[in-house]
Amino acid sequence: MEEYKIVEIKEDITSRNNEQAKQIKKDLAEKKIFYLNVMASPGSGKTTLIVQLVNRLKDRFRIGIIEADIDSDVDAKTIADQTGVKVMQMHTGGACHITCQMSWDALVELGIDDVDFVILENIGNLVCPAEFDTGATQNLVLLSVPEGDDKPLKYPLMFEVASVVALTKMDVAPAFDFDVEKAKKNIAYRNKDAKVFVTSAVKQEGIDELCEYLTEQITKTTRI
Amino acid sequence: MEEYKIVEIKEDITSRNNEQAKQIKKDLAEKKIFYLNVMASPGSGKTTLIVQLVNRLKDRFRIGIIEADIDSDVDAKTIADQTGVKVMQMHTGGACHITCQMSWDALVELGIDDVDFVILENIGNLVCPAEFDTGATQNLVLLSVPEGDDKPLKYPLMFEVASVVALTKMDVAPAFDFDVEKAKKNIAYRNKDAKVFVTSAVKQEGIDELCEYLTEQITKTTRI
Repeated sequence: MEEYKIVEIKEDITSRNNEQAKQIKKDLAEKKIFYLNVMASPGSGKTTLIVQLVNRLKDRFRIGIIEADIDSDVDAKTIADQTGVKVMQMHTGGACHITCQMSWDALVELGIDDVDFVILENIGNLVCPAEFDTGATQNLVLLSVPEGDDKPLKYPLMFEVASVVALTKMDVAPAFDFDVEKAKKNIAYRNKDAKVFVTSAVKQEGIDELCEYLTEQITKTTRI
Repeated sequence: MEEYKIVEIKEDITSRNNEQAKQIKKDLAEKKIFYLNVMASPGSGKTTLIVQLVNRLKDRFRIGIIEADIDSDVDAKTIADQTGVKVMQMHTGGACHITCQMSWDALVELGIDDVDFVILENIGNLVCPAEFDTGATQNLVLLSVPEGDDKPLKYPLMFEVASVVALTKMDVAPAFDFDVEKAKKNIAYRNKDAKVFVTSAVKQEGIDELCEYLTEQITKTTRI
């Protein structure tokens, strides 16, 4: 009985969330801000990838970062130290996802009058964040090599809502039984429109290509 | 407003869940069954470790496995093929965790009249499964090297509810900036009573020690 109750309330909450998300998307489009929601498992390399993207794009765009964590501010410190752009730490107090109300509050707190490109590092979780539209312009989902190429089969919604997927930690592929073609096939099975980039932060591979894609997408919104 | 609603309902649901979990623990103790709930991020090596544990312990105990997944049955097939013990696949239909009602239904479906030791492989998620007591005798939490030694700081509850933690994929430690002592310190910060085992499935290291610990714990319940 509890399960039915959860399901009903969840539908109610997510449908209201989706309505609010539409409004955020509209507001941000009017302000010419591109908002990227980065989602993945814990430890898949979100922070490292964000640092590399920001350092490549910060001369072209005014960037702001929202760091969502259940607790701690390790990532916010790392990003602020390594990029110099403004970073806002959000604590969810145990919550496993970011609703679009939380997302909007964080945007306001960050300040959106002097940014073109905002990145949200969501909670490390391949399940719940996918259910809550944050109002982001696009979703970037990471899948790291050590997690395995079968993850799109096991976590369907996350890959369904992805605009773009970055395979990360490709440098350690020889140590793992990870098949890039199989991963791409599994991603396409969930979402044939998702762009896939094969990256290694350590070897600096695939990051430029992802930046090129993002620049193209950002400029569509910002007209910069 | 939505957030408050979620929080209130969640408290209501988790407190009822905890009540039911007590009953399951009592029933299993009476039947002399040791029930281990295995939790971790996606791709942290749960299935691989379970296979190795089962193959070491199956001559001593009658083992049953419950595989919880949002979708797919990749892991259930792997475990059945590689161990020969009985495996029950549970699909959560999108849910990010196992309630104790789901846990009990799965135990009944698996059949508990001919087992001493049941392993539940929970949904790959470092957040939500920790909030729902499954009625398990103990929780085994995995932290894989590629995820990073800071995860106990970022996912507090998961490490607070752990009876035992296995650091996995130690064989790839040289490729990652993972400090075992720091990981142990971070785990102890959340939970000073959690036993920690340092393992590598590839190099077969630490698995015997974990098996020895589990055997000791299982026999306390089963009296075998």
